[in-house]
Amino acid sequence: MELSGPPYLGAAYYPEDWPLDQIDDDIALMLEAGMNVMRVGEFAWSRMEPREGEYDFEWLHLVIEKLGQAGIPTILGTPTCTPPAWLAERYPEILVMSDQGRRAGHGGRRHACPNSPVYREHCARIVTRMAEEFGHDPRVIGWQIDNELFPAGPRGCCCPVCHAKFQEAMRERFGTIEALNEAWGTHLWSQAYQDFRQLPIPRTDVRHHPSLLTAWMCFQSDSYIEFAHAQAEILHRLATQPVGTDMMPTGALNYHQMHRKLDVVQFNHYNSPENLGQAAFWMDLCRPIKEAPFWNTETSTCWNGGVTANGYKPSGFCRANSWLPIALGAEANLYWLWRAHWSGQELMHGSVISSCGRPLHIFGEVREVARGFRAAADFLNGTRVARPKVALHFSGFAWWLFEHQPMVNGFRYLDQLLDGFYRPLLQAQIGVDVIDPAASLEPYTVVCSPFLPALDEAGLRERLLPWLEAGGTWIAGPLTDIRTLDATKYRHAPYGSLEEWAGVTCRYQIPGEPQSFALRWRDRSISGGSVWYDGLEPHHAEAVATYADGPLKGLAGVTCTPVGKGQLLLLGTLPRGEEVREMVLGAGGYRAAEATPNLLVVPREGPGGRGLIVLDLGNQAGMLTLPQPATDLLTGRRHEGRIEVAPYGVMVLRY
Amino acid sequence: MELSGPPYLGAAYYPEDWPLDQIDDDIALMLEAGMNVMRVGEFAWSRMEPREGEYDFEWLHLVIEKLGQAGIPTILGTPTCTPPAWLAERYPEILVMSDQGRRAGHGGRRHACPNSPVYREHCARIVTRMAEEFGHDPRVIGWQIDNELFPAGPRGCCCPVCHAKFQEAMRERFGTIEALNEAWGTHLWSQAYQDFRQLPIPRTDVRHHPSLLTAWMCFQSDSYIEFAHAQAEILHRLATQPVGTDMMPTGALNYHQMHRKLDVVQFNHYNSPENLGQAAFWMDLCRPIKEAPFWNTETSTCWNGGVTANGYKPSGFCRANSWLPIALGAEANLYWLWRAHWSGQELMHGSVISSCGRPLHIFGEVREVARGFRAAADFLNGTRVARPKVALHFSGFAWWLFEHQPMVNGFRYLDQLLDGFYRPLLQAQIGVDVIDPAASLEPYTVVCSPFLPALDEAGLRERLLPWLEAGGTWIAGPLTDIRTLDATKYRHAPYGSLEEWAGVTCRYQIPGEPQSFALRWRDRSISGGSVWYDGLEPHHAEAVATYADGPLKGLAGVTCTPVGKGQLLLLGTLPRGEEVREMVLGAGGYRAAEATPNLLVVPREGPGGRGLIVLDLGNQAGMLTLPQPATDLLTGRRHEGRIEVAPYGVMVLRY
Amino acid sequence: MELSGPPYLGAAYYPEDWPLDQIDDDIALMLEAGMNVMRVGEFAWSRMEPREGEYDFEWLHLVIEKLGQAGIPTILGTPTCTPPAWLAERYPEILVMSDQGRRAGHGGRRHACPNSPVYREHCARIVTRMAEEFGHDPRVIGWQIDNELFPAGPRGCCCPVCHAKFQEAMRERFGTIEALNEAWGTHLWSQAYQDFRQLPIPRTDVRHHPSLLTAWMCFQSDSYIEFAHAQAEILHRLATQPVGTDMMPTGALNYHQMHRKLDVVQFNHYNSPENLGQAAFWMDLCRPIKEAPFWNTETSTCWNGGVTANGYKPSGFCRANSWLPIALGAEANLYWLWRAHWSGQELMHGSVISSCGRPLHIFGEVREVARGFRAAADFLNGTRVARPKVALHFSGFAWWLFEHQPMVNGFRYLDQLLDGFYRPLLQAQIGVDVIDPAASLEPYTVVCSPFLPALDEAGLRERLLPWLEAGGTWIAGPLTDIRTLDATKYRHAPYGSLEEWAGVTCRYQIPGEPQSFALRWRDRSISGGSVWYDGLEPHHAEAVATYADGPLKGLAGVTCTPVGKGQLLLLGTLPRGEEVREMVLGAGGYRAAEATPNLLVVPREGPGGRGLIVLDLGNQAGMLTLPQPATDLLTGRRHEGRIEVAPYGVMVLRY
Repeated sequence: MELSGPPYLGAAYYPEDWPLDQIDDDIALMLEAGMNVMRVGEFAWSRMEPREGEYDFEWLHLVIEKLGQAGIPTILGTPTCTPPAWLAERYPEILVMSDQGRRAGHGGRRHACPNSPVYREHCARIVTRMAEEFGHDPRVIGWQIDNELFPAGPRGCCCPVCHAKFQEAMRERFGTIEALNEAWGTHLWSQAYQDFRQLPIPRTDVRHHPSLLTAWMCFQSDSYIEFAHAQAEILHRLATQPVGTDMMPTGALNYHQMHRKLDVVQFNHYNSPENLGQAAFWMDLCRPIKEAPFWNTETSTCWNGGVTANGYKPSGFCRANSWLPIALGAEANLYWLWRAHWSGQELMHGSVISSCGRPLHIFGEVREVARGFRAAADFLNGTRVARPKVALHFSGFAWWLFEHQPMVNGFRYLDQLLDGFYRPLLQAQIGVDVIDPAASLEPYTVVCSPFLPALDEAGLRERLLPWLEAGGTWIAGPLTDIRTLDATKYRHAPYGSLEEWAGVTCRYQIPGEPQSFALRWRDRSISGGSVWYDGLEPHHAEAVATYADGPLKGLAGVTCTPVGKGQLLLLGTLPRGEEVREMVLGAGGYRAAEATPNLLVVPREGPGGRGLIVLDLGNQAGMLTLPQPATDLLTGRRHEGRIEVAPYGVMVLRY
Repeated sequence: MELSGPPYLGAAYYPEDWPLDQIDDDIALMLEAGMNVMRVGEFAWSRMEPREGEYDFEWLHLVIEKLGQAGIPTILGTPTCTPPAWLAERYPEILVMSDQGRRAGHGGRRHACPNSPVYREHCARIVTRMAEEFGHDPRVIGWQIDNELFPAGPRGCCCPVCHAKFQEAMRERFGTIEALNEAWGTHLWSQAYQDFRQLPIPRTDVRHHPSLLTAWMCFQSDSYIEFAHAQAEILHRLATQPVGTDMMPTGALNYHQMHRKLDVVQFNHYNSPENLGQAAFWMDLCRPIKEAPFWNTETSTCWNGGVTANGYKPSGFCRANSWLPIALGAEANLYWLWRAHWSGQELMHGSVISSCGRPLHIFGEVREVARGFRAAADFLNGTRVARPKVALHFSGFAWWLFEHQPMVNGFRYLDQLLDGFYRPLLQAQIGVDVIDPAASLEPYTVVCSPFLPALDEAGLRERLLPWLEAGGTWIAGPLTDIRTLDATKYRHAPYGSLEEWAGVTCRYQIPGEPQSFALRWRDRSISGGSVWYDGLEPHHAEAVATYADGPLKGLAGVTCTPVGKGQLLLLGTLPRGEEVREMVLGAGGYRAAEATPNLLVVPREGPGGRGLIVLDLGNQAGMLTLPQPATDLLTGRRHEGRIEVAPYGVMVLRY
Repeated sequence: MELSGPPYLGAAYYPEDWPLDQIDDDIALMLEAGMNVMRVGEFAWSRMEPREGEYDFEWLHLVIEKLGQAGIPTILGTPTCTPPAWLAERYPEILVMSDQGRRAGHGGRRHACPNSPVYREHCARIVTRMAEEFGHDPRVIGWQIDNELFPAGPRGCCCPVCHAKFQEAMRERFGTIEALNEAWGTHLWSQAYQDFRQLPIPRTDVRHHPSLLTAWMCFQSDSYIEFAHAQAEILHRLATQPVGTDMMPTGALNYHQMHRKLDVVQFNHYNSPENLGQAAFWMDLCRPIKEAPFWNTETSTCWNGGVTANGYKPSGFCRANSWLPIALGAEANLYWLWRAHWSGQELMHGSVISSCGRPLHIFGEVREVARGFRAAADFLNGTRVARPKVALHFSGFAWWLFEHQPMVNGFRYLDQLLDGFYRPLLQAQIGVDVIDPAASLEPYTVVCSPFLPALDEAGLRERLLPWLEAGGTWIAGPLTDIRTLDATKYRHAPYGSLEEWAGVTCRYQIPGEPQSFALRWRDRSISGGSVWYDGLEPHHAEAVATYADGPLKGLAGVTCTPVGKGQLLLLGTLPRGEEVREMVLGAGGYRAAEATPNLLVVPREGPGGRGLIVLDLGNQAGMLTLPQPATDLLTGRRHEGRIEVAPYGVMVLRY
């Protein structure tokens, strides 16, 4: 049988924990469900190398072969997330050390140090062996490196190897300890170091310097990325298939940096009915990283779970949740997991079939999704998400900086970005690319950079002015351009460049807690700011909104400054979503369609035609006005004008 | 003066911390209060063996003698809960080790390892010496081993001795490490072990396998039981009095297993006015363990307390709380404590007299209770609680399994058992024995087994069918027969045997959180299920209730299957208390009397006559319809028909 | 330019972290703000001694000189709170050890052990060097030792040095271990020690004896006091200026004991708008310690902050908060801090000017305060707060005793003292000295001693009767005279002396949780008690209030007993604030003026005249009836009769 191609609907499959003679039954059910890809191997190190240096891939060849015979290709995971017992026993120095100096132990996962040379060597060996075995197998269509890489615990790994490597990294960055002291301002509290060897691990039980904390956590992020890249180098050398690593929705690892040496963006999410919008955010982040479509490597069918089942999800959720990544640019959606575990730490997690091999109640929804993928396959494969005009910056550096220096009580970077910017645009059907500071600005008409403290990331400061002068609209602030890459303030002004660029003086700064202040807009309307308040005196700028009360009364809260053919909108505070949306629309953002806020509407275009994918994210009916007549490829029905979308409904509309 | 006999009213007495010449004053007040038993010695190791190998029992002989002269017998405690300073100093290896590797220290209690050979040896020595001194003293009427045995901390003792002993226990259980790997499914996450020596302590900071966690905690429970049995063996050899150990209300130690080698069940409880019903549950559990009446060894008079006084209890509470164990089958109720401490960790605990020797405000209630015990003594001694027709399973294994694998968010085994089954029966005056899976089913007409995951405990699976076929009604589920003794799922079906026995197929399983689904009953009434939802297809069963909405709509939620002369009621979900009660009543359970829900009504019978003990548990008046005229032995008044019971009122009604 | 004198308005200044050529700009702004004192040096050890034994004071001389040239005197801090990196690296034994046995690390502050001989030696050296450099500099007007001394963590420092020193302290206190065992009642739980070397560190993970815990924490307090006194001894020997240490509002260090060897009370507070009344409490505590005016060494201008800005404070707060200490007896108010930090753990804290040297929005309020200080300077310098007639006991020993033995659920010593006594008096404009048990009673007509468990502190028991007999009114209880200095109960009676002195018998004692009981007063009014209930039988006393319900019904809750020319009011429970206030007023307390409860009214008198300082503490307008016509020195306006005070308004009214 011929191997299936995209769009892929699949699941994680763990044959290592079941009798091999069960594979045929599993495959029969997979075909019944409409699955056309399986993800295998990610935790199976102890089955691949049961004793040091003894390898057994026979079972895995069998699985891949049987799947392949049924037309189902395999995505192979490297099993390095779960070192076998013999490895932890013989080389305890590979185990992650907590900031309290305690080594982790065998029994969970993600407990090995990414910088441990011994661990690295064992990882290289098993990955090499896997690549030799499967690197040219046509039934294997891709590689997943490790699983959900992430700094463990509050400080990542704090072992002596990591400690020394961090000190060395700081020596490379600063050259002399005096330079570090100057950059971090360590003369306060007599924190100044005489030698890089004095740089401590920033333990949780010591009140440490935010510059140290930020540098340490970025180093941790770098370490995991370096760890993944080491595997990627082997796979690129020995295997032909594309390589990625399945990542969780978090800013704690830098996605952009990670994917510089990888081929396919892989993404795991377990968002709940309440925050499907957050899943959309991450997919809008995954899509622009690479030109190739991304893979949604994990999501749940009906509930998440470890030793409890974490919340039943209502009917229809599986449908909308499965289509969401496809709509936003993925070519694969895989469930976690195919068959529920019969033991272990995750035995209560939702799946496609139960541990006794029976279809779950969502089996029908899965089949419906599979049928839909097939019905719309040509359109999906022949089109891409139309490139948005609007970009929104998201920074891993900002994540760590705000984590250890939140500036205002209750400030959480991701939540503020979602609530303040992303959701207002999503709910107005305004397409957005969520981009890293290192990404090019060229494709965009409007770039939003709220809460982007360090403009010196990836040379963004230098790239902004030319882009502005060429006609871009930059919406900056609040809390933007206020920190160096060392997590310190500027000393000449509250901002690095914003006063100069915007032609304003920031007179006063006030945290937005516990009190908020009102803004009066140019149309005389009044609405509250939030989060933070910079009071601006415009010199070469226009006041777009002015404080109506409080100590900033009469100062501008939002200004607009022409820059060449472009303009800079400076936010001294975070306005309401309505105003953010109006600014974006006024500057060239556009709505994909008029629709109720619960609907996600994604324009697609390409050789396969043009059209829209429409999804309800809120388990409620929605209304959409079609810009032109279109056919729903899932039903074959023709639609025009104002149409209704059912709760958790999906439409693939080709004009 | 002759020694008193049961029913006993007494208290814990700590003469080791007071001038010995105060004993006479204490005894005078004891007699005034009506006390006729004292519990002495439980923490006094440092007074009995002030230096290693030097013993001093003179003071204790004096205490026992003086009490005896006043007619007050003594219950003697072994002091092993509180090793002296010299023991911890000289043999630090006896100290409990936390799961984080830290040894406990001198200063509290329960800080010695139950498996430590050195500690065991010192315990054996002091117990031997005590038995030699007092084992034939007629004024000593019983022994209490140690005090409130319980695994310390979240993982019990994690010292090297315990660790090695656990590994050895697993080796004995499984024979080969491969067998353990197969049984626990350790190939997931590469957890497989190559040797029993690799089995780790399940630290709290590692996400461990639930099979390991369950096995570890059951091993801890076993260790404490073995520890107690070692003392029992000495006492049985050298002393003539009955032996027990005072236990707290918890499922963390297996009561049934503990009492296999003990003579008298001893029970400590500190329940508050809000949950006297929970105290009743534990007494319904204590009673059936032995044929002999149990001893309520500790309860508070008016408030609990350590370094704070934990909550004043209203007037009358002491009365009802003191009678509760007697009503449910005890022959002794002892307060903690006689005289309030003047120092130390518990100096704020309520008592009978204050630390300066003054009666507390509840002294009058205590005397009233004592007078009542004497007035009803013949009836109490001449009757037993009438054996209930209904049994409710409670399992220590289930306790630990659910602790580490709760299955549904928020599921707490004891709370669910109380709210879902025990209280609805209690409030309908339906008598219940709470039994261990190892207990015989023969005495019962109806057996309820909700949340009993492992039917293989104590061979229950084999004993159920014959009992059913002989005419029993078994109410099983939800969450029953779903796990092996290794805390894993069955792989052939959701249940071990229930599908086969009930003649049903379980189509779907859905956790009962955050959403609940409705059931339609045979009488067309609609009510909600809870906790968990199994959707059943009846083949050889009748649908008693059918899901009215949701993904299980049309499937049965409750079925009834005839089995020989008996029947199996399978609960796929937890119905409301009303329906549970109706099922029990429909199957042969009976109400001791018609009464308002706040009343506990306990039928008694025996050579001493027949009658009822009635108690209000809710501090409110209640109404009771007497099945036949009766005399209240506490007042001498004759009652018939519908009568009122005062708030926290007690009546001992002999027909 | 001549150096400024009091009243002082100033700030903390950290030139060690800024380019030295910035000093002139800073000084220009200081003068603009009206600042006339700066606090310098407290954390700058690494700038003063960059390498062991190498000193650099040049920069500090320059700072003091430049400030002095502008007329601004300097308060110098010793930098011992923040040892340099080389010190912690070379002598790790100086680092604080947690109760879990873990050493602190370089990076925060307050991480050195106060008892470490090595640390003490290094501290002595740097303080000696500073004293030699600046001890005779006329521009330096005072010394601050270290910063915010306080036992670190839940148990202070638990290093071997502290452990051994504690054991030695107990040996000195008790002589023999038997005496300690007797005093603490360690025969309970076999806690008795055979040797002082067995006395353990009271780890948080062991349930320790409250006598041990209280002794340990008092030892910690003593250690920090001894540490400060060692520096004071050096400064007194080598320098001419007055010496103090800036303390935080807490009972964990004994203020009275600390200041026995210091010259000027220094006080830091960061109270919020919600609890300015609590700040007033601490100032009423600081004032009576010394005859000299105290210094308010730290307070925030507009928000507190570490890595977040902790809450914006409304307009006017800075004014009222700056005047508060001056009104209550300070001669200096200093902000923390002058210029916001540009890096580090506290970079978000409010200040006078921003890190880029711009005035904050409260700059105008600061200048207004400065102008006010100057306008009222003669009056402020020429008067003192009129000595109150009323004293309220506050005890550091009680703090620790209640911390480890709260007696009633939810009891917090400071909160109860504030809510039950201090605020009712404050809000009625009744002046109070908050005094240590060691303070003389002579100056007072009424002394209130609620929650004062140990009358044996500083021989208070012996001093009370003569003072009472001479005419004083003592309001004692609840929870007074109920514990020995060993944190144990008396054994002969509930109180040490109160039954005897008051001529009552305490029949019953009941904790005031969860239920409260009502009192009937002599005027037949009914109101509830709280916290605790002693039921009293008056013999030679009059019942002032009698329990109206509950088990104490008919017993007295408050009694009054004449003692010589004085009287003892014994509180068995805590009445409402109204009744407390009436008792105080009835016994000789007086209101400074009739005013609304939001106003603080402080009478002043001295060579500079007589008058009142009036402040609103609640951000609301208030009304005041002037006892006689007066001139507001801040406005020059003449007032009489009933006048209004604006929200956060301040008036300095000279008759």
